[in-house]
Parts: sequence; C-alpha cells; structure tokens
Amino acid sequence: MLGTIFLSETVGTAMLLLLGGGVVANNILPRNKGAGTGFLHVNFGWGLAVFAGVLVSYASGGHINPAVTLGILASGATQYVEGVPVDAVSTLTYISAQMLGAFIGAVLCWLAYKKQFDDEAPAGAKLGVFATGPEIRNPLWNLVTEAIATFVLVFVVLSASAGRFFGATPVVNLGWLGALGVALLVVGIGISLGGPTGYAINPARDLGPRIAHAVLPIPNKGGSDWSYAWIPVVGPIIGGVLAGVLARVLLPMGL
Amino acid sequence: MLGTIFLSETVGTAMLLLLGGGVVANNILPRNKGAGTGFLHVNFGWGLAVFAGVLVSYASGGHINPAVTLGILASGATQYVEGVPVDAVSTLTYISAQMLGAFIGAVLCWLAYKKQFDDEAPAGAKLGVFATGPEIRNPLWNLVTEAIATFVLVFVVLSASAGRFFGATPVVNLGWLGALGVALLVVGIGISLGGPTGYAINPARDLGPRIAHAVLPIPNKGGSDWSYAWIPVVGPIIGGVLAGVLARVLLPMGL
Amino acid sequence: MLGTIFLSETVGTAMLLLLGGGVVANNILPRNKGAGTGFLHVNFGWGLAVFAGVLVSYASGGHINPAVTLGILASGATQYVEGVPVDAVSTLTYISAQMLGAFIGAVLCWLAYKKQFDDEAPAGAKLGVFATGPEIRNPLWNLVTEAIATFVLVFVVLSASAGRFFGATPVVNLGWLGALGVALLVVGIGISLGGPTGYAINPARDLGPRIAHAVLPIPNKGGSDWSYAWIPVVGPIIGGVLAGVLARVLLPMGL
Amino acid sequence: MLGTIFLSETVGTAMLLLLGGGVVANNILPRNKGAGTGFLHVNFGWGLAVFAGVLVSYASGGHINPAVTLGILASGATQYVEGVPVDAVSTLTYISAQMLGAFIGAVLCWLAYKKQFDDEAPAGAKLGVFATGPEIRNPLWNLVTEAIATFVLVFVVLSASAGRFFGATPVVNLGWLGALGVALLVVGIGISLGGPTGYAINPARDLGPRIAHAVLPIPNKGGSDWSYAWIPVVGPIIGGVLAGVLARVLLPMGL
Repeated sequence: MLGTIFLSETVGTAMLLLLGGGVVANNILPRNKGAGTGFLHVNFGWGLAVFAGVLVSYASGGHINPAVTLGILASGATQYVEGVPVDAVSTLTYISAQMLGAFIGAVLCWLAYKKQFDDEAPAGAKLGVFATGPEIRNPLWNLVTEAIATFVLVFVVLSASAGRFFGATPVVNLGWLGALGVALLVVGIGISLGGPTGYAINPARDLGPRIAHAVLPIPNKGGSDWSYAWIPVVGPIIGGVLAGVLARVLLPMGL
Repeated sequence: MLGTIFLSETVGTAMLLLLGGGVVANNILPRNKGAGTGFLHVNFGWGLAVFAGVLVSYASGGHINPAVTLGILASGATQYVEGVPVDAVSTLTYISAQMLGAFIGAVLCWLAYKKQFDDEAPAGAKLGVFATGPEIRNPLWNLVTEAIATFVLVFVVLSASAGRFFGATPVVNLGWLGALGVALLVVGIGISLGGPTGYAINPARDLGPRIAHAVLPIPNKGGSDWSYAWIPVVGPIIGGVLAGVLARVLLPMGL
Repeated sequence: MLGTIFLSETVGTAMLLLLGGGVVANNILPRNKGAGTGFLHVNFGWGLAVFAGVLVSYASGGHINPAVTLGILASGATQYVEGVPVDAVSTLTYISAQMLGAFIGAVLCWLAYKKQFDDEAPAGAKLGVFATGPEIRNPLWNLVTEAIATFVLVFVVLSASAGRFFGATPVVNLGWLGALGVALLVVGIGISLGGPTGYAINPARDLGPRIAHAVLPIPNKGGSDWSYAWIPVVGPIIGGVLAGVLARVLLPMGL
Repeated sequence: MLGTIFLSETVGTAMLLLLGGGVVANNILPRNKGAGTGFLHVNFGWGLAVFAGVLVSYASGGHINPAVTLGILASGATQYVEGVPVDAVSTLTYISAQMLGAFIGAVLCWLAYKKQFDDEAPAGAKLGVFATGPEIRNPLWNLVTEAIATFVLVFVVLSASAGRFFGATPVVNLGWLGALGVALLVVGIGISLGGPTGYAINPARDLGPRIAHAVLPIPNKGGSDWSYAWIPVVGPIIGGVLAGVLARVLLPMGL
C-alpha cells in the first residue's frame, strides 16, 4: 500500500511541476506563444496544474504537497487514506515521493522548453521557471507571506473536507470535482497572495525544481539562489501545521 | 448555536477580506508579481475570495455579508440555518461577526503585504486595498450603482436558493458547488457592475477594512476617505433589502 | 402558467442585459475601473450574465433568447416546459417577454452607469453598450457570422439537452450547473466567433437595448445605427432555426 | 453503430475546429473585436471548443482527437463505447471522421471570418488560424514538446477515467461535467505547454485545417508550411500511445 502511495504522489507531483513550471516558462522565457501574457495566466496555469496533479494522484488522496500532508498530520487525522495510518513511515513516504516527483516534473518541463532554455534569456528568468523568489527580499516577511498563503490552502481544504465538500481524505472523493475545488482555491490564493513571493505554498514545489536547476545543463543559468531556498520550505510548513492545529480546535466547535 | 454562527461568520469574512484585499494589493501596490495585471484579475480574485470564505463558513450558511443577511430577513425567511430563527439577536450576531471578520481579514492582508505597504506607493493605492472609492464621485449615483449591484447578488442567490439550486439556507447545501455558484455570480457582478464604484456590494467588506486602514501603522497612508464611507454601507443595504422584498413578492408567483 | 412564463423570461432577460450591457460599459466608457480591460473580460462578462439570467428564469426554462425559443420550436418539441405546449401563443409570450426584459435591462444598465454616460465619450462607445456593430460592415457576411455563432449555441444546447446533460427543457434541470454549462458555452462562442460582429446571437439582446438607446436621454449619444439593426435579429433567427432543424434530423440518428 | 460513431466524431471535431480556429482568427487577424487579446484568450477559446465538441459527440465518447483514440487502443481497452469493439475498422472509423470533421470545421471558421480573411493580413497570420507552427523551429524538440503535451492530455484522461471521474469510456458519462473536466485539462495544457509549438496535441486538429488552408480561395494566403506538417501529427501520436501504454502498466498498480 505504501508503494501505491509513493507511486501516486510521485506521478501527481511530477504532473504538478511539469505544468506549473511550464506556465512560468511560457510567460517569462522569450520566443514563446505566451511570452508576457501576465500573472492571471500564471495563476490559472498553476491552478490547472494542481487539477491535473490531483486527478492522477487519486489513490493517495492527492496531497502532492508536504504542507498538506503535515497539515493533515497536525489536524489529528488517523488515516491518510483508507488503510494507511498517519505515522512517521507513511508521512515520510508522502514527502519523499513529493520531492522526487517535483524533481522529475521540473526535468520534464525543461525538456518541453528545451530550445527556449538553450536560447538567450536572463539567468533570473531561467531560474524563475524552477524556483520562486520574492519581489522585496526580506526573510521574516517573505516567511510570513508564505505561511499565510499556505495556511489558507490547508485550512480551507481541511474545513471543506470535514465530511461535507471535497471529501475528508482523500480530498477528491467527489471525483474530479474535488480536484477542481482545490484547483480553484489555488488559483485564488495565487491571485490574492502571490504578489510578494510568487507563492510556493509547497516545499516540494520549490526545493525539488531548485535542485533540478542546479544539476541540469542549462546554458547561462546563473546561480540557484540557495540563500532564499529555506523560506519556501519553512514558510509553507509553518502555515500548513498552523492550519492543521487550528482545524483541530475549531472544527469540533461546529465550524 | 449563536456562538457557532459568530465563529463561522467571523472566520468566513476574515477569509474573504484576506484574499479580496490581497488581489487589490497585488494589482495596485508596486513591486508585486501581479502589479498592473488588471480588472479581470481583480474580479476573479474577489470571486475566489468569496469561494474560500463561503467554504469555511458553511455552518452559518456562508452569508459573510450583511446585505445577504438583511436580504434574507426581508424575504420573510423564518430561519437563517436550522435551529437559528431570524430575529434581532441572530441578525446582530451575523452582522457583528461579519464586521469583526472583515477587520481581521484586512489586518492579515496587511501582514501578507507588509513590505509592499512599507514601500513607496500613492496613498490612494494603499487605501484602495482596504476600501472602495468611485471613479466619478457623486453620492446619489454611486449609491444607485451599489444598490443595483447588490440587488443582483441577493436576488439571484434568493431565487436560485428557493429549494432548487444553491440550496435554500444555507446557500451551500450542494457542498462546495454552492459556494462556487455564488463565487461565479460575484465574478460576474464585478465584471459587469464594478466599473463606477469598485463594487463593495457588502457593508462589512468596506467598513471593516476602512477602520483597519485608519488604525494600522502604515507609512504615508493618507486619510481613510470617511466622507465616502456611508455609501458602500447604505447602498448595499438598500439593494439587499429590495432584493429580499421583491423575492418575497415574485417567488410565490412561480418565478 | 403563461403569466409565469412571461414574468420569468422578462426578469431573466433583464438580468442578462443589465450585466451584459454592464461589462461593455465598464470596458469602453472612460472613467471606469475596468476601462480597456479587453475582450476576454467582455466574454466572461456576457457568459456570467447568461448564468445569472438563466438562474432567475428557471421557471420558463431559461431561454432569454428568441433564437433559443425558435430553435426549440423548429426541433419539433411539443412542450417548452411541463404544461406549456409549443404553439403560437406560448412562442409569442416568450419572445415578447424577452424583448421587454431586454429593454428593461438596458435601462437598468444605463442607471448603473449614469455618470459615465453623462460624461464625455465617443457616441460609438455609448451605442456599443446597447447594440452590436461589425468590425467590417458587410450585410451578407455579418449575417453569416451571426447565423453560425447562433447555430453553435442552439445546436449544442439542444443536443446536450437530449435527456442527458443540461436537461431536455428546461435546460437548467441539473440545477444551477445547467445554467453554468450554458454560460460556459456562451463564453466560448464569444471568444471564438465574436470577432467580426460582436456576437449578438440573440435578437432580443440587440433590438431591445437599441430601442432603449433611441429613447433614453443620453448626452451626445449619436444615432442608433438602425441600418444594421436587422442583421442581429435575422442572423440569429436563421442560425437558431437551422440548429433546431438539424437537431430534429440528427438526434434520432443517435448523435 | 459505426455510422453513429462516424457522424458523432465528424460533428464533434467540426465543432472543435470551428471554435478553436475562431479564437485564433479573432486574435491574430486585424479588424476583430478580440484582435491582440492574448494567449490566455486563446487557451480558454480552445478549451471551450473542446467543451462544445465533446458535448455534441457524446455518442462516440467524445474523442475528437486521433491521439485519444490511439491512446485508448494502446491502453488495452476492449470497447470504445458499449457495442463498439476496439479493432482496426472502428479505429479507422474514428480517425477518418475526425479528419473529415476537422476539415469541415476549418471551412466553417473561414466562412465566419470571411471578410477578415479577404482583408489584408500577414500570410503567416492567415495560416496560423488553420495550422500550428513553432516559435523556434527544431524538428526533434518540437516533436518532444508535442509528445509531452499530448501525453499529459491522454494520460490524465485515462487515469481519471478509470471508473472514477470522467467515466471510463465515454469520457463524458458524468454528463456535461465530464466534458468540462476535459475542457479544463486542455485549457491547462495550452497555458502550460503551448509556448513552444502552439499545442496541436491532436493530429486531426492540425492536418485537416492545413488541407483546408491549401484548397480554400483565400487572398494572399502564402504556403501551407508542409515541411512542418508531420510534427503535429507524429508528436501527438507518440504522446498518446505512450500515455496508453503507461496507463496499461500503472493503473493496475493502483494509481
């Protein structure tokens, strides 16, 4: 069963990063049909990347994000999906698969945009396809922004999943409509809270592709901005765990 | 039960303003990923803010707007949700929670965009994240625009809720799809009727954050434009109550 | 029963034109939040106007368009809704209500944008809020474009309504989701076939507001372009009837 | 039964190309309401073209794309729809209908935009309404991009169809909602992977209209770029077949 979890989260997170990285590449690398289309394009792209990713990772509940996994852990849930208890082994299975999948998805995205990466483009743009970076660099407040945005994601999913909307766990138990609900939520978070940091809201989404950026043979790619790398990991974890804890307190009060 | 109502409407309206304020901040404060993306971005942002807000305030029917609460009151409904009769105490519980939640959401939005607020930006832009303002200032006609736009919101929700679509009360009794229906309606109202005044269509959405603007320590924030503040309160109340009265007349005629 | 039909179609078509006219006003009249946002904004605006209009005209099947009514007539259906046979009286009830509703909606739109209409703007822009006009004026080909676009609308609705998707008649028998399906279809038609003529695809949508433009006291409004007025009436009727006839032939073949 | 399949796929693919070609014409031919609206407009246009196309080809499962048909073949499915076994005759029936429908749809699109095609426009723009072309011409990598993008389409549809979401075959067995799911997936693929080649992801979508471009009497249309024509045929076939094979391996493992 943990094998299926691992497979499912790997495939789902790879799908997320292939499509999510793709919309950034399409927007910020020159010589693309969508070059310069803008932030709404980016927001719909990431939301629909979540849609596809959750659809193909139905078997594991469609987390594709360590912050979601850790939020469920913090909420006091006893099973991730039927037959998979919440414990250290299953949690690490989820997270390692998400990291691997994010790396694979970033590599596939690079292949899909191979000639655009080979072409001239600012190093910052090439990095931007893989990893997020802030508009105003400030560790504390960048962390706050990532934590708040991830809190919204995990808290809405948990409260909407309390046996009523998206389904408890897995979130997609309304079929593809549950995946759509989560996708729309991510579109909204990106539109509304993506301004300052580019909304990683997912440690795997940022770290896996950043590693890919570091190892792939991309011409003139510049550095991988490792000094920022901890923020889109720690911020989302804080936000996700806070959401889990708050859900644990408020949901029994009837919220 | 009124405690749950209060909690639910506070959390829901806070979510609405965190995300709704966020999309404006992202668009009109410089040094954001979404700076200058435009009005469609703003419209989807507010619609998806409603989506998230209604999802987390399921327990109270997802009003998150005094004009909706007062419209239901005017429609002659006897219960807000099962076990909560429509009376002065419950109505004030809804509205005070909505006001408190809107204030909290605006503060959270300010925290998410803290460095952007600390940065240079026109005072009018900083105010615009919190409160609406008209393109052509004219009390009578600004009031008319807000009343018409809110009428559309409340009348469609009430007629679509007459045991058929979004559910009677709470509006979300189709699960998250009811929340999506209301969200899409708000996207449409913003696109179509948001031009002249920026569509408050919700007294709490405007007044709560305006108070937040007045008290928060934002550099170079300018005044809070209190001379306009009554219009996005009174206009939506007029529109919502008119919608409730008209629904009371027309729905029994088979509409 | 015909009274309910009349009421329902009047209210629904008024809603359609209030919101549909609104998005054009927001885009093409100066001093609006959405001035110049662009054609995708217009397309979503009209689609969501259909969404709201169909939601409030559930009782009559949500036609809000004479081309839909005539397409159903041509398809050989025997009832518009349960208890309302397809005959000359019921058909004229639908169409007259749609015309009246479109006129009322255009007047409400003018009130919502009163100060923008009083302000300076090109006469062509002021007319554009009410009525469509072609980019390249050519009666034959403008007629062809309107007929093709309306054919798509009515044919998809009829084939999707054959007891399977949106519901037979009324189209909205899946609750608000049926209304959403039609709304998305209209978004797509506008995006794809709205280029040459601005997609009236509805005789009432164009003629009712054009009459409103002629009689309302709008400063510097210019003429109402009556020489073009027959095209967005005749083109959609041709397209809708063709769709009905083709549905009558193909649906029994298993399509 | 094969007659119904042929009719259904012809009508559905014609609808796809009428609307899909239309959004490109609207964007890149001058003197259109939507001229220059941008790539998000194009992406929603194609997605909603899929929506309409799948809706009208319900009877055959709404493939409207040889890569989908061949992907189902490669996945080891035994029936396309109930009563239609997967064999050489039925597969050729699907594909020939798709090719014919794509040609017909392109001709209808040309009629809807007749005056715009008669007007002055760059030959490349006129061709772009019919057929795709890469931003950076490179046969190998253009092929890779088309294969990856089509892989996403077919793999997500197959895994989401494994008795859970969109329905096994036909994909639309959730009514119009299944069509919406596929449409949103195509919106996402276009946004994310459409940058380098303009995402044919469908051999019929490109080849049928390219033939139409070659034979239609369009002034100053230039050549039909036949040297590129094999890529949007072969790339999608590779991607679709790979997706079918991988689904055959992974789905039984619990994915």
